[in-house]
Amino acid sequence: MAVYTEVSDDDLARFIASYGLGALLSYKGIAEGVENTNYLVHATAGTFILTLYERRVDPKDLPFFLGLMEHLQARGVSCPLPVRDGNGRILGELAGRHAAIITFLEGVWPRKPNAEQCLELGRALARMHIAGEGFALTRANALSLDGWHQLFDKVGTSADDILPGLHRTIANELAFLDRAFPRDLPQGVIHADLFPDNVFFIGDKLSGLIDFYFACNDMLAYDIAVCINAWCFESDYAFNVTKGRALFKGYNEVRPLSAGERAAMPALARGAAMRFLLTRSYDWLNTPKDALVARKDPFDYVRRLRFHQNATSIADYGCEAAP
Amino acid sequence: MAVYTEVSDDDLARFIASYGLGALLSYKGIAEGVENTNYLVHATAGTFILTLYERRVDPKDLPFFLGLMEHLQARGVSCPLPVRDGNGRILGELAGRHAAIITFLEGVWPRKPNAEQCLELGRALARMHIAGEGFALTRANALSLDGWHQLFDKVGTSADDILPGLHRTIANELAFLDRAFPRDLPQGVIHADLFPDNVFFIGDKLSGLIDFYFACNDMLAYDIAVCINAWCFESDYAFNVTKGRALFKGYNEVRPLSAGERAAMPALARGAAMRFLLTRSYDWLNTPKDALVARKDPFDYVRRLRFHQNATSIADYGCEAAP
Repeated sequence: MAVYTEVSDDDLARFIASYGLGALLSYKGIAEGVENTNYLVHATAGTFILTLYERRVDPKDLPFFLGLMEHLQARGVSCPLPVRDGNGRILGELAGRHAAIITFLEGVWPRKPNAEQCLELGRALARMHIAGEGFALTRANALSLDGWHQLFDKVGTSADDILPGLHRTIANELAFLDRAFPRDLPQGVIHADLFPDNVFFIGDKLSGLIDFYFACNDMLAYDIAVCINAWCFESDYAFNVTKGRALFKGYNEVRPLSAGERAAMPALARGAAMRFLLTRSYDWLNTPKDALVARKDPFDYVRRLRFHQNATSIADYGCEAAP
Repeated sequence: MAVYTEVSDDDLARFIASYGLGALLSYKGIAEGVENTNYLVHATAGTFILTLYERRVDPKDLPFFLGLMEHLQARGVSCPLPVRDGNGRILGELAGRHAAIITFLEGVWPRKPNAEQCLELGRALARMHIAGEGFALTRANALSLDGWHQLFDKVGTSADDILPGLHRTIANELAFLDRAFPRDLPQGVIHADLFPDNVFFIGDKLSGLIDFYFACNDMLAYDIAVCINAWCFESDYAFNVTKGRALFKGYNEVRPLSAGERAAMPALARGAAMRFLLTRSYDWLNTPKDALVARKDPFDYVRRLRFHQNATSIADYGCEAAP
């Protein structure tokens, strides 16, 4: 939530002219995105987001992220569209950073998502999974089982500085996931980070999905498991089965989950909780207290994990166990 | 440069509906303004800035600031216009803060102002001074001679922690200003903080003035002295007389300076340099190094002050001494 890189007016005016967007009318650094610097840009041709990619993003991944948005947009998914410059390039350079100009998507993300919004989310996620078919590039999920082990090695026993006993909790859970995390479910392009702040609504209508910077190829049902964690728990950590039911209903309307995907849901949900527990634990220990970026509490995911550990089937999340 | 106060989507949607602006389409916290929280808001009715007033602003001053923008707009000055709600109120409350909805002004501020832009600035400043006539409310300048003494008392000998000898430099300069700072020049409403980041251009054309949160009643010529300090020095602290000449030319075209105002310009410029030297010194000593807000170096104003101390007449700034 910060502007890391300043851009001069002259440089930006030249940059957007090379995209054929006309004159620069205004630009404001926006407090959005933890990883990159974003400006909201008004030009003669309309409203755009300028993204400057900071160090945490691997430049080799950018063609995948930007190409995916283009692929999805062309297949009817409402998401930001990278603009190509006069030479047809999707990726430019500005202020010493890799940079892209992306169409501005109207909408606000729901601070307290309701069941109707979870229903819309389920539909949009399934549509995105179908639209992702045929995308030529691939990117492995760096934050799956292997990546979790690597993060855990880095966090080590410092986990207990966050919460006494956390090191053992994670070790036990990873041992379970090594045995039980599914491997043979239907694959495709997943968003992998579809939290409420990445889903825009205008009123109750979903207006689009944003922030594809964790997208990768993985099991489609894992994407739902991320959403269960991100959308269906209340602030007191209680699972809201009405929201879960709505999420699965919306998804199944568009792409019915197979019996195998349903059977694997509790383990997928445990894996998704582990992913965020580990990245948040790592960031918690490695982000200076005075940093520009707010640290997110890992504890939320310890509580979610406990719920998943007690779930016996997808029915506990509000979905029928059989298709 | 920070978003201090978060606003929920539901609260904001209700808030803008009370202004008759239609549906909320999007809102982004923008990294602009040191004192307040600002969001760029898209609604059915157009683009607006939502400002939430934080602690450093005295709520008693808000009717002056907002009323002034309305007064100036009605008299042809291009500046943001506070929107009145359904009950005709200019000031509301949101997220526990005093809040206002203000029209969005297109334009970018010049990172490296050129002489042509200084000419435009001079014209716009003089027009603003004339347009300010007849504004019913008044507000004393809290950052004039008395205020400088109060700030100096707070800074005390810690000034020498910023720069050895700075305490003596300020003490001597204040003694000079007590004797020589003018008191009987033409008065009116001044902006008092018209730095480049508060003046928007589209291309070379000035599109408007923003940020009236230091505006007050004071000598009109003092506003020019602020601009000389803010616009006409290069990054190596050299005074650029071409820019000074352009600034005065533009101002005199619209509101010719009197002989008295011209004679007082070196002392006014010293006072303006002292104002920013003191507030920056105070902030330098009182802003934690890890704060969200960038500290501005007071040293810039020591160097400017030296130039003004050596100036013998307004001719040194690029303006004829006689009208």
